[in-house]
Amino acid sequence: MLGHGTVGSAFARLLPAHADRIEVITGIRPELAGVVTTSRGSFEELLAGSDLIVELMGGIDPARGYVMRAIESGRHVVTANKQLLSRYGEELWSAAREHGVQLRFEGAVAGVVPVIRVIQESLAGARIDRVHGIVNGTTNFILTEMARTGMKFEEALTEAQRLGYAEADPSEDVDGRDAAAKMAILARLAFDTPVHLDEVRYEGIEHIQPDDLEYAHDLGLELKLIGTAERIGEGLSVRVHPAFLYPGHPLAPVAGPFNAITVESEEFTEITMSGPGAGGPQTASAVLGDVISAMIPPASTPPTSQRLPIVEDVVSAFYLHLEVADEPGVLAAVARVLAEDGVSVKSVVQKGLGDQARLVMVLHPVLESQFAAAVRALAGLDVLRAPPRAIRVLEEEFG
Amino acid sequence: MLGHGTVGSAFARLLPAHADRIEVITGIRPELAGVVTTSRGSFEELLAGSDLIVELMGGIDPARGYVMRAIESGRHVVTANKQLLSRYGEELWSAAREHGVQLRFEGAVAGVVPVIRVIQESLAGARIDRVHGIVNGTTNFILTEMARTGMKFEEALTEAQRLGYAEADPSEDVDGRDAAAKMAILARLAFDTPVHLDEVRYEGIEHIQPDDLEYAHDLGLELKLIGTAERIGEGLSVRVHPAFLYPGHPLAPVAGPFNAITVESEEFTEITMSGPGAGGPQTASAVLGDVISAMIPPASTPPTSQRLPIVEDVVSAFYLHLEVADEPGVLAAVARVLAEDGVSVKSVVQKGLGDQARLVMVLHPVLESQFAAAVRALAGLDVLRAPPRAIRVLEEEFG
Repeated sequence: MLGHGTVGSAFARLLPAHADRIEVITGIRPELAGVVTTSRGSFEELLAGSDLIVELMGGIDPARGYVMRAIESGRHVVTANKQLLSRYGEELWSAAREHGVQLRFEGAVAGVVPVIRVIQESLAGARIDRVHGIVNGTTNFILTEMARTGMKFEEALTEAQRLGYAEADPSEDVDGRDAAAKMAILARLAFDTPVHLDEVRYEGIEHIQPDDLEYAHDLGLELKLIGTAERIGEGLSVRVHPAFLYPGHPLAPVAGPFNAITVESEEFTEITMSGPGAGGPQTASAVLGDVISAMIPPASTPPTSQRLPIVEDVVSAFYLHLEVADEPGVLAAVARVLAEDGVSVKSVVQKGLGDQARLVMVLHPVLESQFAAAVRALAGLDVLRAPPRAIRVLEEEFG
Repeated sequence: MLGHGTVGSAFARLLPAHADRIEVITGIRPELAGVVTTSRGSFEELLAGSDLIVELMGGIDPARGYVMRAIESGRHVVTANKQLLSRYGEELWSAAREHGVQLRFEGAVAGVVPVIRVIQESLAGARIDRVHGIVNGTTNFILTEMARTGMKFEEALTEAQRLGYAEADPSEDVDGRDAAAKMAILARLAFDTPVHLDEVRYEGIEHIQPDDLEYAHDLGLELKLIGTAERIGEGLSVRVHPAFLYPGHPLAPVAGPFNAITVESEEFTEITMSGPGAGGPQTASAVLGDVISAMIPPASTPPTSQRLPIVEDVVSAFYLHLEVADEPGVLAAVARVLAEDGVSVKSVVQKGLGDQARLVMVLHPVLESQFAAAVRALAGLDVLRAPPRAIRVLEEEFG
């Protein structure tokens, strides 16, 4: 492994934790042969003792020379270095083809969101028309905070730094250059044409005013830093700039430090992928997926290594719809019967009058067997005019 | 190719259309050696003349025997047959490992949404805790229509059939069995344990009443047919049932015939993938991705085969914020200047009075160079109290 920053140290923890499982999948037990950083360790010694090099130093030098040397020595390379690939990708990919090794880089764009693999492998045969992406978590967090609280850019940036979503020097994130590097890589893969970082036009979010977000909100618009790569006539446009989205857009609900990418094609309309875009553990997960892919023959489904028992009785929240007699004490009677089976009411609405009277409620999570017993007991109540109707409710909040 | 239904005929059109590009990527030009269906063609003859078998017949017999025979003859196999894999997957995957061939099946779950590859390859090293999915486009379309229009189930089903989103016999879709087969496959891959279709508990949507959707809407809930596979203690639960989602859930905005899958893990929080779940062309795209993957050595980034020129001046819509003098005729003056550069106003809001007076507008799409000229002209107007502020707006509606 080259480098030992946030992603590197997360990867160094993740690899041994998954070594057993990886041995089942690949037949080989991965071991970290050593760590070289700019200040310690010998690259040549590490190379001699390794089958695969994981480059997580970032920056151009010495990463560029190390990656090239590893490829020329017949080692597979996994990297998360977007600056390197957006500027020197062609020479590295070309060397990898020539030497018959894999150069994988899922961690370079959108962390664990597998956009590189999907564009490069799943959609290898498709004619892609456009890629839209929120590929910088720092700016998306800042814009989300500005819209939510009315904060100024500088305040939201400070908040992002406090929570670890922005670096001490955030300039490449907030001025759009980080997103531009990622869009250069995506455009290269999606459109089968060389794209250098210098060819990507970019704008950042430093000039966004809180009242722009406020007025736009009145118009139903959400502001995001959007990377776009699209065919225009016989050419290609690759650019990064803030843009308002209408509520129907698949990228509009992406909030906080999340990333998301939409790939559009006439053949399949569109695919959207989203998830945490940055952070050490997330990017390390992407790097680990690449390492495993480099270790195994092309996708075969490995044998199962365990047999988990199937659990039949699970916990669920429920919506419950009861047609009831319109008389005093009905809600109390229903709540008592539910409580006897350990079912408690989260919210309830009474609807209608007389023959139309209904109780519509959402119940707190319980074992399904408990809920079924409660419904059987309810069905015996005189005040019910029809069998209870129940539908599960997913309780979790996300994002 | 085995089978020549909706997906098969779409694949037969797609393959020659992409043959040039595939030859660049793989070095091999793919050709359709022949088509065998239950009523015509000899499977043994087809097998003898093919390097790879694409199975798109569906059903168990004769697909099961053909796929096994192809594997045993050392052919890679690409299939979209969820019923086959959810019942006989283990014997087929085991045979594929034994004979050193690939058995790929992206098209079996969620059409072109690359959930199989992502779980099996990108997340190979991750410990997955839960998979939630909307994996049946027919039922999602029906529920979306019921919620939108207040239609009954039977009416929405008829509408789905009219639009080609439901088959003449929709029973496996609406009763949840189709989704159950897909969840069995996802659970097998995500949790590294054998899962048979018969172990998946499922409920359909036939019993959903329009007023359930209406009441739930008052509570802010959206109804979906959700497949869930999750660890519970040391066991596994795999199930399909209708469930209400809160607005924050990443699957809540998935509407119409779309599919979406959320994969959760403590290591990376969550990844969500969405796109068109069914339809011949979409599934054929997934099948083509699998065919290409089976043809190439593990991911190397192919050389570029073209150089698209970079387009600098692109069309965009804009949000425009002007601080203006609070006097009659300002809007007319602004609109006239914009019109001279071919820029027209889509919507405008006047805000504030006196020193706070502002025009906030959204403009129709124009070339960015035209817009820049218009802004330069505006900046010269006496009635402006500050430089114009502009932010792009993405115009497209999606989904």
